[in-house]
Amino acid sequence: MQFSLFESLNLLGTFAFAVSGVMKAIEKEYDLFGILVLAFVTAIGGGTIRDLLIGQGSVAWMRDNNVIYTIFLAFFLATVFFNLMKRFERWVTFFDSVGLAIFTIIGIHKGMQFHFNEMICIALGTITGTFGGVIRDVLAGDKPLLFHKEIYALACIIGGSIYFFLRASDRLENFAEIICCIIIIAIRLLSLKFNISLPKIHVKTSEK
Amino acid sequence: MQFSLFESLNLLGTFAFAVSGVMKAIEKEYDLFGILVLAFVTAIGGGTIRDLLIGQGSVAWMRDNNVIYTIFLAFFLATVFFNLMKRFERWVTFFDSVGLAIFTIIGIHKGMQFHFNEMICIALGTITGTFGGVIRDVLAGDKPLLFHKEIYALACIIGGSIYFFLRASDRLENFAEIICCIIIIAIRLLSLKFNISLPKIHVKTSEK
Amino acid sequence: MQFSLFESLNLLGTFAFAVSGVMKAIEKEYDLFGILVLAFVTAIGGGTIRDLLIGQGSVAWMRDNNVIYTIFLAFFLATVFFNLMKRFERWVTFFDSVGLAIFTIIGIHKGMQFHFNEMICIALGTITGTFGGVIRDVLAGDKPLLFHKEIYALACIIGGSIYFFLRASDRLENFAEIICCIIIIAIRLLSLKFNISLPKIHVKTSEK
Repeated sequence: MQFSLFESLNLLGTFAFAVSGVMKAIEKEYDLFGILVLAFVTAIGGGTIRDLLIGQGSVAWMRDNNVIYTIFLAFFLATVFFNLMKRFERWVTFFDSVGLAIFTIIGIHKGMQFHFNEMICIALGTITGTFGGVIRDVLAGDKPLLFHKEIYALACIIGGSIYFFLRASDRLENFAEIICCIIIIAIRLLSLKFNISLPKIHVKTSEK
Repeated sequence: MQFSLFESLNLLGTFAFAVSGVMKAIEKEYDLFGILVLAFVTAIGGGTIRDLLIGQGSVAWMRDNNVIYTIFLAFFLATVFFNLMKRFERWVTFFDSVGLAIFTIIGIHKGMQFHFNEMICIALGTITGTFGGVIRDVLAGDKPLLFHKEIYALACIIGGSIYFFLRASDRLENFAEIICCIIIIAIRLLSLKFNISLPKIHVKTSEK
Repeated sequence: MQFSLFESLNLLGTFAFAVSGVMKAIEKEYDLFGILVLAFVTAIGGGTIRDLLIGQGSVAWMRDNNVIYTIFLAFFLATVFFNLMKRFERWVTFFDSVGLAIFTIIGIHKGMQFHFNEMICIALGTITGTFGGVIRDVLAGDKPLLFHKEIYALACIIGGSIYFFLRASDRLENFAEIICCIIIIAIRLLSLKFNISLPKIHVKTSEK
């Protein structure tokens, strides 16, 4: 078994996503099974929804043991060494951003493979990167963080748009993936560092 | 590109459903991305669940740019002209009822195309018409309105039943769709006007 | 039409799951349509998610009238004779455990039919048995009971593992299904009787 860089980064992202599921489940005082399920849905939820929408037959992770073992590893480590994980939270956030970038690229590729137009491909990339977290929050009984805090999906959308822009250029075509990834990671980390979030629409409460 | 009456009404309904997603997201203080996602899931959620249950390959809206642009338009208009939309709430409610009727018919047709029996076809019509709102409410962290307020699904069920009844008759076969639509719209608007809702089962609290 | 023992037990389980959906909906003061939907999603939700993940075309219950009529019957009886149902709660719990066992076996069989490995088959069995309840709780606006109360999924996982263990043995191969069922029912009922639940991870609140 030989790992490409791409596959390694994918598993790193899967690990980080699963850890965020474990954290959320522990915060909600879920039991061990609840923790395991939240680790899983956070890590594979986005890809699952993508595969369902595309209608490609069985969803990808069910045939991919590496992904499954990675999630079990994350479940085990994050549950046993919860306090240690907390201390390395910065690293988890960094891996999480790597996962966001890789998952977006994977989703875009899959969309292209099924001949969807650019807009749908970017949407599939964004769904792959972000909807695991949405399912995690719904199953935890929370309003999805994605919809009211932090810049997350926007990083995927911008990164994905730049990806298609670069692919159309002669010079940078071969670097489109890597540049797209770097942009997504950069937007995510910078928006966290400077505490930037998307604007909301405020309405007078008299209108309810 | 030529629009049939049917297609136009479908887009009108899509628009109204998307607007109701925007309204809900703004009420919940979601950010711009959250508003966009709720506009989408409200408009295409019902049809997506229908297509997933049928297992027809990729879901319908992913190949239908008119639907996607209509949702973006609704997102843009309802976000920018929020207060204006509020003032025209009656029209939005009317369009919403039109959407409910059209979506029900589309769902029934799709069920027939896949040779499901009448009961399942009516269920698919009802799901197409109503489950976008259910996903909207779940993602907004609310109990689905559909399950405890207003007559909504019942309009689809009655309309759908009458549709199959009319199809079996010699005289009215050609008018089955239009009569079904009018009945759904009428039930919905009248139940709103007279504040009629479905009965609930009340239990003594001592039984928890 | 001839019923096998297996089919009868399946319908018994479907009935009990639907009743638990009705109970939850009434507790939440949902209207008649809400009660019907919760009866349905609790009874067929797990199998639906399994079929979607496998990507087998249309989901199983849509072609199975016996399941649909059983759910309608449960809806009718549990709504009309709510107080009576409450008094026979023990029986409903017992039937519910039978359903859990049968659904697990059905899910495992389906996984084997599609040539998934043992781990995925057990996961599919567990999903078939438990995720109807998860959807029920999400649609009722609750945190899924499955994740923080009672032993439920663990029974499926242990039963499923023992099933594959028995299949590998020469002597007990033919009894694998029945032993698996009995083990699942026993674990479920004993854990209820002795009030055993899965451990949770407790963290100091200072760490949030």
